[in-house]
Amino acid sequence: MSDKEVGFVSMAGAKATGTAPTIGVGVLGYAFMGKAHSNAFKKLPYMMYPPVAIPRLVAIAGRNQDAVQEAARRYGYEKYYTRWQDLVNDPDVQLFDNSGPNDAHAEPCIAAAQAGKHILCEKPLARTAAESKTMLDAVRKAGVKHMVAFNYRFVPAVRQIRELVDSGALGQIYHFRAVYLQEWIADPDFPMVWRLDKNVAGSGSLGDLGAHIIDLARYLVGEPARLAAMTKTFIKDRKTGEGQRAQVTVDDAFVATVEFANGALGTLEATRFAPGRKNYNCFEINAEHGSIRFNLERFNELEVFWKDSQPRETQGFTNVLVSESYHPWWKNWWPQGHIIGWEHTFVHEIDHLLRAIVNGEDVAPHGATFEDGYRAAVICDAVLESAQSGRAVDIKY
Amino acid sequence: MSDKEVGFVSMAGAKATGTAPTIGVGVLGYAFMGKAHSNAFKKLPYMMYPPVAIPRLVAIAGRNQDAVQEAARRYGYEKYYTRWQDLVNDPDVQLFDNSGPNDAHAEPCIAAAQAGKHILCEKPLARTAAESKTMLDAVRKAGVKHMVAFNYRFVPAVRQIRELVDSGALGQIYHFRAVYLQEWIADPDFPMVWRLDKNVAGSGSLGDLGAHIIDLARYLVGEPARLAAMTKTFIKDRKTGEGQRAQVTVDDAFVATVEFANGALGTLEATRFAPGRKNYNCFEINAEHGSIRFNLERFNELEVFWKDSQPRETQGFTNVLVSESYHPWWKNWWPQGHIIGWEHTFVHEIDHLLRAIVNGEDVAPHGATFEDGYRAAVICDAVLESAQSGRAVDIKY
Amino acid sequence: MSDKEVGFVSMAGAKATGTAPTIGVGVLGYAFMGKAHSNAFKKLPYMMYPPVAIPRLVAIAGRNQDAVQEAARRYGYEKYYTRWQDLVNDPDVQLFDNSGPNDAHAEPCIAAAQAGKHILCEKPLARTAAESKTMLDAVRKAGVKHMVAFNYRFVPAVRQIRELVDSGALGQIYHFRAVYLQEWIADPDFPMVWRLDKNVAGSGSLGDLGAHIIDLARYLVGEPARLAAMTKTFIKDRKTGEGQRAQVTVDDAFVATVEFANGALGTLEATRFAPGRKNYNCFEINAEHGSIRFNLERFNELEVFWKDSQPRETQGFTNVLVSESYHPWWKNWWPQGHIIGWEHTFVHEIDHLLRAIVNGEDVAPHGATFEDGYRAAVICDAVLESAQSGRAVDIKY
Amino acid sequence: MSDKEVGFVSMAGAKATGTAPTIGVGVLGYAFMGKAHSNAFKKLPYMMYPPVAIPRLVAIAGRNQDAVQEAARRYGYEKYYTRWQDLVNDPDVQLFDNSGPNDAHAEPCIAAAQAGKHILCEKPLARTAAESKTMLDAVRKAGVKHMVAFNYRFVPAVRQIRELVDSGALGQIYHFRAVYLQEWIADPDFPMVWRLDKNVAGSGSLGDLGAHIIDLARYLVGEPARLAAMTKTFIKDRKTGEGQRAQVTVDDAFVATVEFANGALGTLEATRFAPGRKNYNCFEINAEHGSIRFNLERFNELEVFWKDSQPRETQGFTNVLVSESYHPWWKNWWPQGHIIGWEHTFVHEIDHLLRAIVNGEDVAPHGATFEDGYRAAVICDAVLESAQSGRAVDIKY
Repeated sequence: MSDKEVGFVSMAGAKATGTAPTIGVGVLGYAFMGKAHSNAFKKLPYMMYPPVAIPRLVAIAGRNQDAVQEAARRYGYEKYYTRWQDLVNDPDVQLFDNSGPNDAHAEPCIAAAQAGKHILCEKPLARTAAESKTMLDAVRKAGVKHMVAFNYRFVPAVRQIRELVDSGALGQIYHFRAVYLQEWIADPDFPMVWRLDKNVAGSGSLGDLGAHIIDLARYLVGEPARLAAMTKTFIKDRKTGEGQRAQVTVDDAFVATVEFANGALGTLEATRFAPGRKNYNCFEINAEHGSIRFNLERFNELEVFWKDSQPRETQGFTNVLVSESYHPWWKNWWPQGHIIGWEHTFVHEIDHLLRAIVNGEDVAPHGATFEDGYRAAVICDAVLESAQSGRAVDIKY
Repeated sequence: MSDKEVGFVSMAGAKATGTAPTIGVGVLGYAFMGKAHSNAFKKLPYMMYPPVAIPRLVAIAGRNQDAVQEAARRYGYEKYYTRWQDLVNDPDVQLFDNSGPNDAHAEPCIAAAQAGKHILCEKPLARTAAESKTMLDAVRKAGVKHMVAFNYRFVPAVRQIRELVDSGALGQIYHFRAVYLQEWIADPDFPMVWRLDKNVAGSGSLGDLGAHIIDLARYLVGEPARLAAMTKTFIKDRKTGEGQRAQVTVDDAFVATVEFANGALGTLEATRFAPGRKNYNCFEINAEHGSIRFNLERFNELEVFWKDSQPRETQGFTNVLVSESYHPWWKNWWPQGHIIGWEHTFVHEIDHLLRAIVNGEDVAPHGATFEDGYRAAVICDAVLESAQSGRAVDIKY
Repeated sequence: MSDKEVGFVSMAGAKATGTAPTIGVGVLGYAFMGKAHSNAFKKLPYMMYPPVAIPRLVAIAGRNQDAVQEAARRYGYEKYYTRWQDLVNDPDVQLFDNSGPNDAHAEPCIAAAQAGKHILCEKPLARTAAESKTMLDAVRKAGVKHMVAFNYRFVPAVRQIRELVDSGALGQIYHFRAVYLQEWIADPDFPMVWRLDKNVAGSGSLGDLGAHIIDLARYLVGEPARLAAMTKTFIKDRKTGEGQRAQVTVDDAFVATVEFANGALGTLEATRFAPGRKNYNCFEINAEHGSIRFNLERFNELEVFWKDSQPRETQGFTNVLVSESYHPWWKNWWPQGHIIGWEHTFVHEIDHLLRAIVNGEDVAPHGATFEDGYRAAVICDAVLESAQSGRAVDIKY
Repeated sequence: MSDKEVGFVSMAGAKATGTAPTIGVGVLGYAFMGKAHSNAFKKLPYMMYPPVAIPRLVAIAGRNQDAVQEAARRYGYEKYYTRWQDLVNDPDVQLFDNSGPNDAHAEPCIAAAQAGKHILCEKPLARTAAESKTMLDAVRKAGVKHMVAFNYRFVPAVRQIRELVDSGALGQIYHFRAVYLQEWIADPDFPMVWRLDKNVAGSGSLGDLGAHIIDLARYLVGEPARLAAMTKTFIKDRKTGEGQRAQVTVDDAFVATVEFANGALGTLEATRFAPGRKNYNCFEINAEHGSIRFNLERFNELEVFWKDSQPRETQGFTNVLVSESYHPWWKNWWPQGHIIGWEHTFVHEIDHLLRAIVNGEDVAPHGATFEDGYRAAVICDAVLESAQSGRAVDIKY
């Protein structure tokens, strides 16, 4: 870790000079997630201010030379690589960020751990629980900081909900119901892509969308004890080119019922066959003292019902615009009502990881560790097992 | 059936004289449902105008003499009885309306059928599929008209959805997710009542709320082929009096996954442990050409997404205020935007039954017959069986 | 007033025998409003239970003999008249209900007052303030009970808001903004009707829709001190038949700013040129301790914000489903969440008037008297005066 | 303008090498707006990709040396100044960004124009129309590019609405109603700040919030021809320190009615006394073929009603999640449903200005020029004049 000195003054004007170390970052992948992570690395130093550390954009890696070179120029990475091995072994890289596809998670992450790099890995951690376990074992053995990019934990509204749960304000949780609905493959003419190929993706809506709500279930409610599930592939094959088609080898959708260890009852569902639902990750908690609902398409809002609010004549679900200085992370952003968006979750997430690295804090409980990634994978595997067997499956890690 | 002549003129002024027979009605039960049905019988003749028949309020029956006598005065029944047998055998009664508790459905309905009365029975038809089957056999044998009061089929928005499904506008259905959430027993101090006693109610949230969404699933999507379920009783016993408690013998909540015969995937859930949810019967359909959502708390609205609506820049979920003259039943009510409420479903429902009786039309498909009531009971039984066995259960009638 | 005895028992079963007088009702008009009022008279005795009085449907009057005869049959009036004079002079009529068009308000109401009848008159009270004043003078002189059918005072949510204002919970009111938007004449092909003829209607959107929000402004906020307004007639003439057109002589829309005597600032607007707005009577109050919003298209809901609600992290606008037994009038209806509709306002309104008649109570402040009707007319006149002069106008009664 | 070469490749991988000039930027102000603009300058090069120009952060200026030095470090400005004159005369500065308070707009902007700098100035352009006119004259004379930061023109939903208006899809506009509601000074204990001082701010809610909706009215509907207004200062003085108070010399709120040159009728209102309204800039257009509604607190959504959409049974207001690649600017951001926020408007706005500078395009009509800023100021002045005189005022530029 380098030790370049940076002095800063808070916005209010009071001087708060300090030492912010730089941390060398190496990113694998330059597509959707590479863009989201790069943006976060660049915004963090002046928005999460004063920064706990200053990311140094050391290198970006990808298989297509033209594309990765261009990405390096675009985002300001000092170097680019076409082999992830070079990235992982670059001595300037202290934090390895794996934003590649699911089948490129395990090997590079394990190598990075062995090289002593801290790791941020996109979700799902891997294609199966077994594969995830090898990654968990590696980071544990290496003693590096590790985090799975379950970025919805870093939505201010979601963190606020967790804090309400932790505070006891909700009391015993009775119900959790979560859906993650998208629409983008409902069109039969949508072509074959890697996300529909089990070899690359591991699973379909389950690993892509379901993993998110499974992680939120664990983060907000607790461990599932048992689940029963069904899956469905509505469109069995898709075109790959002129007159050619390939088999879809993953689930288009899954539905599951869950019993949590604490007695709560839940439902989980993910699909990419919900016309009109763009990115509808929506859940509701019903508990002893109230209920809470969140919908990712209304990122800056949450709905809450308190049983004992006064006056009773005006009880109901309150729509909270989560944008006050006392809401999670909001003091870093804008005045109330000047809303933020999806990309901001990555700023919060990476800030969290940098704090863990710099200050030696734990990534858990608010950040998802590889242990969390592994557990989500176990639950994903249980969904597939139950769907096949027609039986409820106990969750065992 | 009497044949008193009534002449009528439509609101528009054009004379439409006709013959509206009177139909003698006998109602069992004077509480919540007795009130709702009585109101409907009284409003029907001047609101569903010109009426297909004029209900004559012959008699009302209930066990408490003072209460039933008072109900007769209040609603204008000519007679009252404290024994349902007297009601069922009253020769002036042509239509027997069973608005009593679940354990008082089978015997009176069977007797009424044997006495040749047409029958309207509150839901759930009975406490079990087996009990329901005896009722179905009886009405079939008697050849009378029969209807289960699944009144949510008679919400204008719901009928509109069914018409859209029938028209093919939605195309293949991929998903159906329905919840029926209430809050009224989430309070641990709420006492023991008959709805929590298996002997009287048969089941808990399942038969009370779940039966409604199971019926809607069948009405809107089609037959379930297979389901897997979990149930929960959060509060095991409740107070019955000073220092005394009784065991709750029914489910407080259930969750289920369903695969429909047509390939659609679904979830079903009912609970009375959802603080803030007053009467939240909410479902969503995702289909080939669009999606539809309905929420009973916003009775007069539905939300619909059409994939191919133009211009694409303004595609999204449309909130329809179902209150135009071309919406189901609306020409009978008020100008657009002058909304109606829950009680109006019973007017539509009874009008439908009277048309079947007077015109010899079928109650099906828009009205729920005892066959539908029996099938809903089979599915309820399957929920309980699956919850106990931990296995998916095939639905067989 | 007759004194036929009626005994009743509350739903709970406790006997509450009493004497409910009958009150002879005579209704002028059998169209939209005649239907709404007739329905209310018929429902009241068994829904507002035990009833303060039992309406006896003595007679209905209208100019078209076939139509009025048919209306009498349909709703169960004992007699019908084609001359309002016969209705007003019928000795069996104790309450004269004027549901006729605006130009048929003054003369019949004055005659009825002179005949000693209590009066319910549809809004607006008359076509101008001057005409309204003659009616107010007449009922005062006669000493009869009088009420203008500003039925939105009898929406449970609206009464609830008034109670919150009266309780001081809101504190000083800063703002009131109200719109009443409809769409039905935005189509240029919509023909000429009486509501667009100044001779019959007095004014356009102003008297029809604006009068409602002007009355709500006075009911909820207090007296306007000053206003400035603009009006508009978008479509100047409309077809009356084949190749024939007539001039539209009323406003299609008006907008106004208002300063209230208590210092609040307001805006008022009404139009029938708002595509998609079916019956959108929507207002918001901003006050010292919170804000409240109501929208008639969501009749059973209100939104409220409390500045000091706890915890602050979950402050926001609360959506209240106004359907609990402790909400206004709700104990007469159904369990929570089983919503009611527009027509129910008339049941509440007429119940209120009957209580005034039977118990000698004041119609004010919750019912609108002819004084209120006159004041609304003064404000309507001020809108037209300001629109013409381009100057703010002080309100003086 | 420097001519450093930058090569880029589109995300899709196809090489698109080009020359992106750098443009030297000097910003006056490091508080709220300085932060928002700095963020935009930093994000633009990699998000509006390939960039039309690369902002070079030359210098930032402000009166407090410690604070401005710190701001320079934080955002990466090469230099800082405590005198705006130094900034304006810095030869490396090609674009002068005035993010200072209202009373620091005119003099620096005029000096910058005289120095040949392009100018971006925060809104309102100045404290009065007269002051604004001096600025407009200066930029015209200098022939520099000029833009007022009416950033809500750069909300994707707002641009989309403008495109719908331009396309003729809405037809003739009948109504425009806009409110801009905030709550932050409703608390009587809120202290005196510069925004409440007429000498610094020019006006209160009017210039701060009202200017935005006045600009939107002009952008979306057209020129106002006439208006009538009222203003209000609810709290006349506020604390400035221990036992000391100063007079509030601006409006706390205003309301206005407007007639547009094209015949549309409108209302405008702004206040900071609306508890619960965080940043509620909400407007609705009613037009010949439909209606549109936007609410800034739901930045990523718009609501639209089309009169002729099919099928008519499902007509209603459609809630559009503005986040598809074919929505304005969205191809630069994220996949559908991954929403953006308030800060993104500045990226779009500055990109627009850079295109004008680099490509010689007009700032108008989509960007607000100083001419637009001046016209908004004329309308603001008219509001104050009408409020004082009680008369409608014609708008003349």
